[in-house]
Amino acid sequence: MLSLKYVAINSFNENIVYLHKDCDAYRVDDIKHITKIEVHGGAEPISAFLEIVEDESIVHPRQLGMNKQAFEQLNLPEGANVTLSLANVSSSVASIKRKISGNVLYDSEYKAIIKDIVSKKYSNMDIASFLVATGSFMTVQEVLALTEALAGDENITWDKETIVVDHHCMGGVPGNKTDIIITAIVAAYGLPIPKTASRSLTSCSGTADTFSVLANVDLDEKMLKKIVNDHRGAIVSYINLPITYANKLISSVQRSIGMATKEHVLASIIAIKLATGVSHLLIDIPVGSSSNIKTTNDALKLRKMTEYIGDMLNLHVDAVITDGSEPIGNGVGPVLEARDVMRVLRNKENAPRDLMEKSLFLAGRIIEFDPKVRGGQGYHIAKEILTSGRALEALNKIIYAQGKAPQAQLGRLTREITAQKSGVVESIDNSRITRIGVLAGAQQSAGAGLDLMKKVGDEVERGDVLYRVHSVNSNDFAFANSAIDSDNGYEISSKK
Amino acid sequence: MLSLKYVAINSFNENIVYLHKDCDAYRVDDIKHITKIEVHGGAEPISAFLEIVEDESIVHPRQLGMNKQAFEQLNLPEGANVTLSLANVSSSVASIKRKISGNVLYDSEYKAIIKDIVSKKYSNMDIASFLVATGSFMTVQEVLALTEALAGDENITWDKETIVVDHHCMGGVPGNKTDIIITAIVAAYGLPIPKTASRSLTSCSGTADTFSVLANVDLDEKMLKKIVNDHRGAIVSYINLPITYANKLISSVQRSIGMATKEHVLASIIAIKLATGVSHLLIDIPVGSSSNIKTTNDALKLRKMTEYIGDMLNLHVDAVITDGSEPIGNGVGPVLEARDVMRVLRNKENAPRDLMEKSLFLAGRIIEFDPKVRGGQGYHIAKEILTSGRALEALNKIIYAQGKAPQAQLGRLTREITAQKSGVVESIDNSRITRIGVLAGAQQSAGAGLDLMKKVGDEVERGDVLYRVHSVNSNDFAFANSAIDSDNGYEISSKK
Repeated sequence: MLSLKYVAINSFNENIVYLHKDCDAYRVDDIKHITKIEVHGGAEPISAFLEIVEDESIVHPRQLGMNKQAFEQLNLPEGANVTLSLANVSSSVASIKRKISGNVLYDSEYKAIIKDIVSKKYSNMDIASFLVATGSFMTVQEVLALTEALAGDENITWDKETIVVDHHCMGGVPGNKTDIIITAIVAAYGLPIPKTASRSLTSCSGTADTFSVLANVDLDEKMLKKIVNDHRGAIVSYINLPITYANKLISSVQRSIGMATKEHVLASIIAIKLATGVSHLLIDIPVGSSSNIKTTNDALKLRKMTEYIGDMLNLHVDAVITDGSEPIGNGVGPVLEARDVMRVLRNKENAPRDLMEKSLFLAGRIIEFDPKVRGGQGYHIAKEILTSGRALEALNKIIYAQGKAPQAQLGRLTREITAQKSGVVESIDNSRITRIGVLAGAQQSAGAGLDLMKKVGDEVERGDVLYRVHSVNSNDFAFANSAIDSDNGYEISSKK
Repeated sequence: MLSLKYVAINSFNENIVYLHKDCDAYRVDDIKHITKIEVHGGAEPISAFLEIVEDESIVHPRQLGMNKQAFEQLNLPEGANVTLSLANVSSSVASIKRKISGNVLYDSEYKAIIKDIVSKKYSNMDIASFLVATGSFMTVQEVLALTEALAGDENITWDKETIVVDHHCMGGVPGNKTDIIITAIVAAYGLPIPKTASRSLTSCSGTADTFSVLANVDLDEKMLKKIVNDHRGAIVSYINLPITYANKLISSVQRSIGMATKEHVLASIIAIKLATGVSHLLIDIPVGSSSNIKTTNDALKLRKMTEYIGDMLNLHVDAVITDGSEPIGNGVGPVLEARDVMRVLRNKENAPRDLMEKSLFLAGRIIEFDPKVRGGQGYHIAKEILTSGRALEALNKIIYAQGKAPQAQLGRLTREITAQKSGVVESIDNSRITRIGVLAGAQQSAGAGLDLMKKVGDEVERGDVLYRVHSVNSNDFAFANSAIDSDNGYEISSKK
């Protein structure tokens, strides 16, 4: 019997318990390996990793310390009596082994795995194993099964609405922040759009990162419903919504191991939309040789998969294939992307045209989900809403309701990358630009990133600035510069 | 700038740093995800996971706390000034992605990955990703590359010896504790055998677990050399030897995720033997339908792989295929296996014959590594050493030199499993017996396990005891019993 103590450490999704090395109830000396244990005493036993403490101010020999995650899950008061047993490897791990051996998993296996993830029987290591094992191939049926398992049984309901829309992009194109503009236009039009956004997994900035430069994105379910009811739109980080908990745990591991397959991303996107009660979903599939989806064939395959899963789960899906051959807009990184978005919404002269046109096209497709809109009219309605300033007005209301963010600073460590010869920009490598931006610190510091002055097709003179890199932290700046020196991501052809 | 503080927490292989939530040097509020950072200030930056603390008695807002692992790696005094940057995903992760996509990795890629593991740039999650990605298939060349990378550049040297022998089993057969008997016989014969043993990965008891019932197995390199010099043999847990560090980190993750492929196990075994300066190695490959290696074809493939890798790395390898159709001996679990071993060495009436015969066969093969021994004579020499008591004498010297372990208790929670009908034991399922033993707590409590009273071919009457299960912990006992009730692992045929 040990007495429960709260240890105020936040370990981000991992349950950890602390035993003193002189604990007399359990032989701690023998522990030489990572050890997963079960704690008994609450309504359900919980799993946690064991760490050994040599400092009585953290835990006494008769106490069991628990970090924030474990303490919250066990849900007992400090001082409660608890006992320990060794946690066995979860039985669903057998499915992961079957997958490694090349098998197709049954729907029930995905359900069991996701159940183990949600109940925290899986550590981050176990989640990584699952993601890598299913990373080599998944059948369409498997992606459907994973989507259903991730969506869970509960979802937000929108009693007064007949259509609830949302939009998501498959990623891979730096600077592609159409979501915020689309949300503004669609909300101004009047369709309810509870836009669930994610933090970056492998990119420089997720929509949640970019929008958090402008507003608070950490809303709970009640706030989300209220703001969408009042203003027809909101942009929230889905990780604060308990109904998308499994996705949060998985994305945290994806980010850490730096891997997110198309199938996993698609399953997660659709699951989150189902959980938030979306009825009509637009999926943007950008294709480009240096993007996530490299060929039109791959994009078509993904579109068909998306459509099939939507049909099976009773979600109206429109999947559109777009140009992902180069970055969209000029900014790459949260602050710079937010700047581009506001330039478009303010109808500024220097607003990036490609970002504006793509946003109008996609917003138009969403507006056409409204049965009252005649096919082909969506774009024109979207354009009228944007140019009239109504989209800006709608977004300002949403920002105000969510809570305006304090002014963010652009990173002060800068370098201008110039053309080594005169000619025409032949190509810009998306994945290289992403790599440089990530190294510059964009995933950590909102003010870090790249500001692209030239795009594909632009004529350049030798010495013209191609882009400016911004960092907040000098270590990051050094890494970005050394990456730029080996390959700056731009191809200049001599012909004009 | 933060001031370094040691936080006396042992997190088993994972570097962790602690920042106070009100830290003013870094914006801690924004951190919502698992975050890997780099700590600068020492000779080399080190990677660590960031955890957030709300208790000033653990760290102050101007301190950076470090757990045992991180503090030891950074190797700076408390109070030293350190700075942080975001850690980027390691470049060798690109190789893991290539492997997931079905590629064969180059030797240099295995080298880079193992280098990242050893320098702790890989978290346990990253190691799990690597293991699962390479778990679906590896070419012989890849296994060789992994073996070389794991072996590293340094190894123990045995200046006075021309032959240094060792033995290892590919596992999968419960109770198979030939190693200790072999070491005793070979040491008594006079060949130097620095037996490196492992803790269990997925089994009920590794040789290191079983021998730790008898003696201290946590020797350092100096002690190992001295004891082998003095007594010709020693049995050590390899995880204490710095030269096998990469293997330790990997095995810890294998144990936690419950997966260890044949290729990974083989690479690790050979790497450890190379690091400990072994020149002649006997590998035991047990084959059985419920063992790790299920068919003779698989065993032959593994033998050829073993021979090839041995040849390429200048290690003399003898790989023998043995019968792995049922458990060896009677005991399964550390205390019970140690009992069987001592019964054999003491030439007791109740010594398990299969364990004795298999140990003699294998010890004989090792003795034949000695050029002075005529082919086919090894077995007879081994038998004479065993029956004369010289093997027991040699082991007692080794135990005394390593440090005799305190008497271990057999688990007091017991249940006898009886035959439901009369007949003959048709089969005993190795993996089921392992599963029951693991549930009974054998990986955690030395006294837990199974004591098998009947083996394949034995006649039984209805009600005869097939085996007795032992647990130390009541939760474990309950799990084991429920597993036994659904399938006790024994098949009884009606015919006599």
